[in-house]
Amino acid sequence: MEITEKGVCVEGFKAGGTRKGKYGLAMILSDKTTNCGIVMTTNKIQASPLIISKEYARSGVVKGIVANSGNANAYTGKEGIEDSKKMCHLAAEKTGLNAESFVVASTGVIGRRLDMKTIETLIDAVSKSLEATSEASMTAAKSIMTTDTKAKTISVKTKLNSGEEIEIGAIAKGAGMIAPDLTHATMLCFITTNAYIPREKINEVLKKAVDKSFNMLTIDNETSTNDMAVLLANGMAGNKDVDEKFQEALDFVTREIAKMIAEDGEGATKYFEVNVKNAATKEDAKKAAMAVAGSNLVKTAIFGRNPNWGRIIAAVGYSGAEINPDAITLSVEADDKKVCLIEKGKILAFPGTDELRLAAEILSGSDLLITIDLDIGGGEASALGCDMGPEYVTINAEYAT
Amino acid sequence: MEITEKGVCVEGFKAGGTRKGKYGLAMILSDKTTNCGIVMTTNKIQASPLIISKEYARSGVVKGIVANSGNANAYTGKEGIEDSKKMCHLAAEKTGLNAESFVVASTGVIGRRLDMKTIETLIDAVSKSLEATSEASMTAAKSIMTTDTKAKTISVKTKLNSGEEIEIGAIAKGAGMIAPDLTHATMLCFITTNAYIPREKINEVLKKAVDKSFNMLTIDNETSTNDMAVLLANGMAGNKDVDEKFQEALDFVTREIAKMIAEDGEGATKYFEVNVKNAATKEDAKKAAMAVAGSNLVKTAIFGRNPNWGRIIAAVGYSGAEINPDAITLSVEADDKKVCLIEKGKILAFPGTDELRLAAEILSGSDLLITIDLDIGGGEASALGCDMGPEYVTINAEYAT
Repeated sequence: MEITEKGVCVEGFKAGGTRKGKYGLAMILSDKTTNCGIVMTTNKIQASPLIISKEYARSGVVKGIVANSGNANAYTGKEGIEDSKKMCHLAAEKTGLNAESFVVASTGVIGRRLDMKTIETLIDAVSKSLEATSEASMTAAKSIMTTDTKAKTISVKTKLNSGEEIEIGAIAKGAGMIAPDLTHATMLCFITTNAYIPREKINEVLKKAVDKSFNMLTIDNETSTNDMAVLLANGMAGNKDVDEKFQEALDFVTREIAKMIAEDGEGATKYFEVNVKNAATKEDAKKAAMAVAGSNLVKTAIFGRNPNWGRIIAAVGYSGAEINPDAITLSVEADDKKVCLIEKGKILAFPGTDELRLAAEILSGSDLLITIDLDIGGGEASALGCDMGPEYVTINAEYAT
Repeated sequence: MEITEKGVCVEGFKAGGTRKGKYGLAMILSDKTTNCGIVMTTNKIQASPLIISKEYARSGVVKGIVANSGNANAYTGKEGIEDSKKMCHLAAEKTGLNAESFVVASTGVIGRRLDMKTIETLIDAVSKSLEATSEASMTAAKSIMTTDTKAKTISVKTKLNSGEEIEIGAIAKGAGMIAPDLTHATMLCFITTNAYIPREKINEVLKKAVDKSFNMLTIDNETSTNDMAVLLANGMAGNKDVDEKFQEALDFVTREIAKMIAEDGEGATKYFEVNVKNAATKEDAKKAAMAVAGSNLVKTAIFGRNPNWGRIIAAVGYSGAEINPDAITLSVEADDKKVCLIEKGKILAFPGTDELRLAAEILSGSDLLITIDLDIGGGEASALGCDMGPEYVTINAEYAT
């Protein structure tokens, strides 16, 4: 597997984007009809674009994605549904396709009708500027940003066991409101590939990658009305099916995007991973890892470079996972430094010890990894999170009046 | 029912407290043996004092409570258990009782051994200063504060249906780490009454009150290793049993204490209530109310006086409660002003409307009430929460190195 510079503009795909006032708009378009997989938020309030995308994805004629930032088109009733349909219709009109050829996504404030005049102007402009370049992919990524501070994009190529070289590219937006159950509030991730993925398999392939990446990512435990991950596969690589090499590459792409989203969490200064090993079950490992990564108290301690490991242990305790307090081993590491704070229930990091001093030093580093060994069974999981600074509050106290 | 000034020093009870450096210590003592009810954290890591209190509460000879702040004595292994026993033993020695006559509580940093020398000095001092006055109750309340900014105390008297006048008093500490499942991290509440409560009934009576108060309170969704609510009933009122008048008074006391804890949440400027009506079930109403009260995005919006009601609807959506988006009615009120933002799924509060302006005004008031009518069934619940300011992060980034 090799990282490339194409973003979503892998073989057979064009992209483009633009911004106007509060609104941004991005389009991705395939030269050939794609098979389309979608994984969506579990929030029971589903935004209009999700309802329409679910319907259109089944049409079998999907070629592209049209997405806006600045307004979520969520909780907007029947009119909102019509607006989402109209977005697809406008995108199709400008590109000579049917409305069902597009899936649609929105992100922004909830409960406001879309300004369809602005949307139309933006779709018109973007559809004329579609290009198959890494710059075009970057422009698309920038157009869907809300409180994001960085555009999120990646692409890779790899060889399948059957010999064909395939490409996978992605752009995404994240920032706040990210929590488990792909619903990670207002996370949009658009993935393109020139591989062929059988229609009956594409949702499963995507879900597998999402379960290991976006579903293990938490910014603030919120679950958006608008989150979705879309995978468009245009089959131009000529492969007959996908295999574990493809899954591995897709897992890598979604995990890297998830990391970028964590790094760019609202008000965050640091991204971290929580690995839980030897839990009673895989489900228990997930619960424990997500409880630690999602804990406000752990997040603020990491922000303060404060090795208050009791908060980690407390979060494991309330996670619902089966535990034996006397068996837990806890270590933290960063930048090739590592320290064990608790070893099989025995505390090593008391005030005044080298362990606690080293832990504080490690918390000041980057690429922080927290490892918790529950020593009960064989369940493993890894969660992604970010620290929480005062900026998180400031951003969210002011965002969107 | 009438509010009184006695705090925990209701008929037959003395109290006292003191502080020294990081440590504080409070004692409550009854003239007569009490029946003792305890409700504890659901965190699977239970601090040593909880393990000992559970054991001693069954002894049938409980007369008092000894509690320290400054160190949670949690995750401290067998030595921690011995330290908790020793606290009871020291308190008993100074008051001429058996160790089993005391239940014990601790709050503070996790994973550190108690400084038993300091504890002994404090127990010695407090046991000599026990008094049956409201000042003594206040001193006890102050001694168990950690990041609390205000001491929490209340007392009431009421007449049972059988004619006896009974008293109930309480002190508590709260602040951060408060979330559902009495475990509301590091919430300690000590309740005294001169009523007789049958032993086989006392835990149930306390649990009923806790379910409507502390278990509906969320500061930061964390669940402590140390939370406990204790009820000591010395029977001096001469009643034969408790009835709904007693439950009503106990419910009032715990709900008022829960409000004080919410008002004093770390970094909070405002306390609010979330009432959910007409949910499919009571459990659904609880889920929805707690999701809204616990949402970082709702909490930061309230801090910013920002009527971003979409976040309330999104939290209801991910709460797990059954909903019909087209049936929801949402209103906010404070200081005798009230505004309906959504009426049976129809949005009334768009930008530029009087409704949205009034909502912003209401968010600047005190005693904020958010009412959500799901219009599905008959389930009702009310949750307590507080807003989230940048101070929350600052306090928790620095607390306890």
